[in-house]
Amino acid sequence: MAPSKRSAATPPTARRWSTAITQIEPNRILVRGYPLDEVMGRVHFGEAVYLLLTGELPTPSIGRLVDAMLVSFIDHGATPPSTLATRNAATTGASIRGSVAAGILGFGRHHGGDILACRQLLDDGLAIARTGKSVAHAASEIVARLVASGDVPPPGFGHRFHTKDPRTVRLLQMAHELEVDNEYTQLIRAIEHALSRHPSLKERSLPINVDGAVAAVCGDIGLPPEVADALLIVSRLPGLAAHALEEQRREAPMRVINPTTHQYDGPSERRLPERRK
Amino acid sequence: MAPSKRSAATPPTARRWSTAITQIEPNRILVRGYPLDEVMGRVHFGEAVYLLLTGELPTPSIGRLVDAMLVSFIDHGATPPSTLATRNAATTGASIRGSVAAGILGFGRHHGGDILACRQLLDDGLAIARTGKSVAHAASEIVARLVASGDVPPPGFGHRFHTKDPRTVRLLQMAHELEVDNEYTQLIRAIEHALSRHPSLKERSLPINVDGAVAAVCGDIGLPPEVADALLIVSRLPGLAAHALEEQRREAPMRVINPTTHQYDGPSERRLPERRK
Amino acid sequence: MAPSKRSAATPPTARRWSTAITQIEPNRILVRGYPLDEVMGRVHFGEAVYLLLTGELPTPSIGRLVDAMLVSFIDHGATPPSTLATRNAATTGASIRGSVAAGILGFGRHHGGDILACRQLLDDGLAIARTGKSVAHAASEIVARLVASGDVPPPGFGHRFHTKDPRTVRLLQMAHELEVDNEYTQLIRAIEHALSRHPSLKERSLPINVDGAVAAVCGDIGLPPEVADALLIVSRLPGLAAHALEEQRREAPMRVINPTTHQYDGPSERRLPERRK
Amino acid sequence: MAPSKRSAATPPTARRWSTAITQIEPNRILVRGYPLDEVMGRVHFGEAVYLLLTGELPTPSIGRLVDAMLVSFIDHGATPPSTLATRNAATTGASIRGSVAAGILGFGRHHGGDILACRQLLDDGLAIARTGKSVAHAASEIVARLVASGDVPPPGFGHRFHTKDPRTVRLLQMAHELEVDNEYTQLIRAIEHALSRHPSLKERSLPINVDGAVAAVCGDIGLPPEVADALLIVSRLPGLAAHALEEQRREAPMRVINPTTHQYDGPSERRLPERRK
Repeated sequence: MAPSKRSAATPPTARRWSTAITQIEPNRILVRGYPLDEVMGRVHFGEAVYLLLTGELPTPSIGRLVDAMLVSFIDHGATPPSTLATRNAATTGASIRGSVAAGILGFGRHHGGDILACRQLLDDGLAIARTGKSVAHAASEIVARLVASGDVPPPGFGHRFHTKDPRTVRLLQMAHELEVDNEYTQLIRAIEHALSRHPSLKERSLPINVDGAVAAVCGDIGLPPEVADALLIVSRLPGLAAHALEEQRREAPMRVINPTTHQYDGPSERRLPERRK
Repeated sequence: MAPSKRSAATPPTARRWSTAITQIEPNRILVRGYPLDEVMGRVHFGEAVYLLLTGELPTPSIGRLVDAMLVSFIDHGATPPSTLATRNAATTGASIRGSVAAGILGFGRHHGGDILACRQLLDDGLAIARTGKSVAHAASEIVARLVASGDVPPPGFGHRFHTKDPRTVRLLQMAHELEVDNEYTQLIRAIEHALSRHPSLKERSLPINVDGAVAAVCGDIGLPPEVADALLIVSRLPGLAAHALEEQRREAPMRVINPTTHQYDGPSERRLPERRK
Repeated sequence: MAPSKRSAATPPTARRWSTAITQIEPNRILVRGYPLDEVMGRVHFGEAVYLLLTGELPTPSIGRLVDAMLVSFIDHGATPPSTLATRNAATTGASIRGSVAAGILGFGRHHGGDILACRQLLDDGLAIARTGKSVAHAASEIVARLVASGDVPPPGFGHRFHTKDPRTVRLLQMAHELEVDNEYTQLIRAIEHALSRHPSLKERSLPINVDGAVAAVCGDIGLPPEVADALLIVSRLPGLAAHALEEQRREAPMRVINPTTHQYDGPSERRLPERRK
Repeated sequence: MAPSKRSAATPPTARRWSTAITQIEPNRILVRGYPLDEVMGRVHFGEAVYLLLTGELPTPSIGRLVDAMLVSFIDHGATPPSTLATRNAATTGASIRGSVAAGILGFGRHHGGDILACRQLLDDGLAIARTGKSVAHAASEIVARLVASGDVPPPGFGHRFHTKDPRTVRLLQMAHELEVDNEYTQLIRAIEHALSRHPSLKERSLPINVDGAVAAVCGDIGLPPEVADALLIVSRLPGLAAHALEEQRREAPMRVINPTTHQYDGPSERRLPERRK
């Protein structure tokens, strides 16, 4: 294939470039300016993820919310295609790393893509609201457009398993309690309401799903869409790794992985220890 | 290629299987038995990683240590080959996900492999100690073997940039303060001492590096080697994502990435806010 | 993330599906209907690639052309970012497979993306021609649009190293000799001519590059764009594998790969044996 | 993780390195010394793969055999885990490239690993034969070892679906007709014979499978094991790409891919055109 032509002017040798992420010197590692050994034990991993991706430490409220979002996506059982891609790699005896990479490749437009698409929807709605219309009016207009173009369910609404996704409820509640909810959250709730009232959608249940909740909360805390998207991959990695490890420990190699014949045999429902509450 | 022959007996359709990671039911998601919405906001992401990979919540001390280990590896600048694989993908306009997956594939035996190799070394040493020998004696014997076989520097010791890796110091100090250090930590310190005293290695500086520290601490807190290895991938993902995002934001597409002509231009050294200390 | 809602109606267990690629029965493998053992030794690998991707064997002329296209992309030295992603993985001791996969991830919109983009340009031009305009007229209109929108160089034209890419010349000549050139080839030549005559582009050399030639030839032989795109990945894989093998054989592990300090030290120019001509 | 310590001596900037694969100059591309435009149309893609991986053009006989091996692995239906990894990525709307990369990661020790393992077995057997023992004796000794260690079926023997793999038959026949079969082929046939006569294996059918045939033929034509291994990945890529394309064209996104409920609905058995015979 043809290399880009844009770089023709300067010879490649001369090109200097910069990075603002990490400074490495003998016996000294600064991440976004903070000594890494000082960060260890004082900044939680979820907050450090935010520091890496945005360049600044989160406020305590935003830190708690980002941490909760990372936890919310950590796993969703054995049937997501990303998890099946990981397990199909792991059953061949591939490395945990390679199996996890296969799983990351198993995220596409239709799987993990709703955060970006819903954010776009919300940005469109807020553009309407900023012309002086009410949020309720903007929501109605967005829903009318979606119905006209047949884009129902819209990204961020409806779920195959859950009519009331517990992660959505918790995330929006936390955003409210931490006082970081704002126009994105208001708008997504208004759209949910408008969907439930639209004559052509009366029989359908289209609640905000977890992608929608994350899209709205990330909007309200000022995370750019592509950073929200990167968070998603970080958050699911532990789940993919857990499935790869379980596959290689519990199952015979080279098995035919049928996603419809498995059951859960882990611990039954239990409560967090008291100190966690 | 020939499919495995092991699975010939049972027809694939009949095969039922189980997973103990996550239970999915309508409006209910249990991770290792805990309702996910209850975990959100109450268990930090680093602790949730431990829960996913081991099946149980960590004790508070172990949770803090695992979190610190995840932070310790979060990034090491623009020159590790994994980071360069990510940046070379990102410069072509590939997705952040694909770029990050390329970076994960850029971990091999010689990069990120020392945790497993050092753990093996420590297990060999502890096997000697368990025959009734002192830890110091086991360390001397291990060092004698390493020198004899030419395996110097051994996995977990020595560093290209750092003679006293700040991450190692901090991690071992935290393990001590949290009272989770034990025989693995004792042994690795004894090996460091024996290396410094060995006549043939007098001029070489072979301090415990961060891989060695992680290997020892994971041994003392009872993490199986393959789980320690999975932690590593989780921990570096935010760094890979940050480099992919920075590459696409700051640089022209299709540039020739020269790892020897870059500089750091981020914030200069700064302290954590008071409340963090 | 939220699973798709589209699949809610039928329970997953009941879903039957079909594939038209390969039929497997005991002691019998039919690829697109042909017994694989009969195909071996009678259909060249390049033709078999076409069979797999399109469902039918190519005519002899198209088979020769597809084979030549596969050869044309087989390698382009050590500096493409895809190759550097592969080498950065290989230097860590990663497997050849993983290193090659990292290289495939190092193809993005700006690297290997010009075939699809140029095909779109040609389809736009042919749409104009089909309204009764001449090919020359369509080409002028396309160039006027490109200049107006600032999309210069357009996809499929211009090259960082080559002012007259030998692969382009050969491919278009073969298409002509094999009598498979048609409207796509005519149009791309007309666009090249129109670019060279446009007042604002007089000083720039914007010859058809190999991506453009492949896009045009694939159009003329009736390959859908996404199949042309898949061909590209097949064609570069041997190059990626060769670089991974060379990296691990010739270089020390964990080296810093500087893409501007290498030289070629293979055989000097040589001719094909007589029987090949 | 700790960077390697081996490269400490020379500063990274100074390091010059070489590649013997492809020489790029303006308007000139030499692959292993041959002008690429001269190779196009004169050297088949399968032969060019050999040229890239080994540095030299194959003889006509070896070229035909390598081409046949590449064809032999081109696809094996929808159930191999590598293919399922690709399809699970493709169903999410991931790119064809990313889906194919996921498939490559779906090759591990137990899937595609038998070529290397069988080659090792054959090298062990030839080491015995080179002490002056007959091939039959070496085969018996190898089988005795395998039975003693419980490594039955050995790598390269037995198949889940095929008792007489048509690809094996054809490949060994071609090697014989092209007069390139030699000690590796003799030994693998002798081992097959010894397996069939061993008292403890009487009821088991353990014919040479296609991995075994490829391992033996690659040995006889002098391909290093790691090159044979790289051939495998090149050969299966078109199959992976075909499945990714078919998944996205024929199926709804985000479906649950059940590997036990599909059927073949492509063309029924057909013969090659006369000119191919």
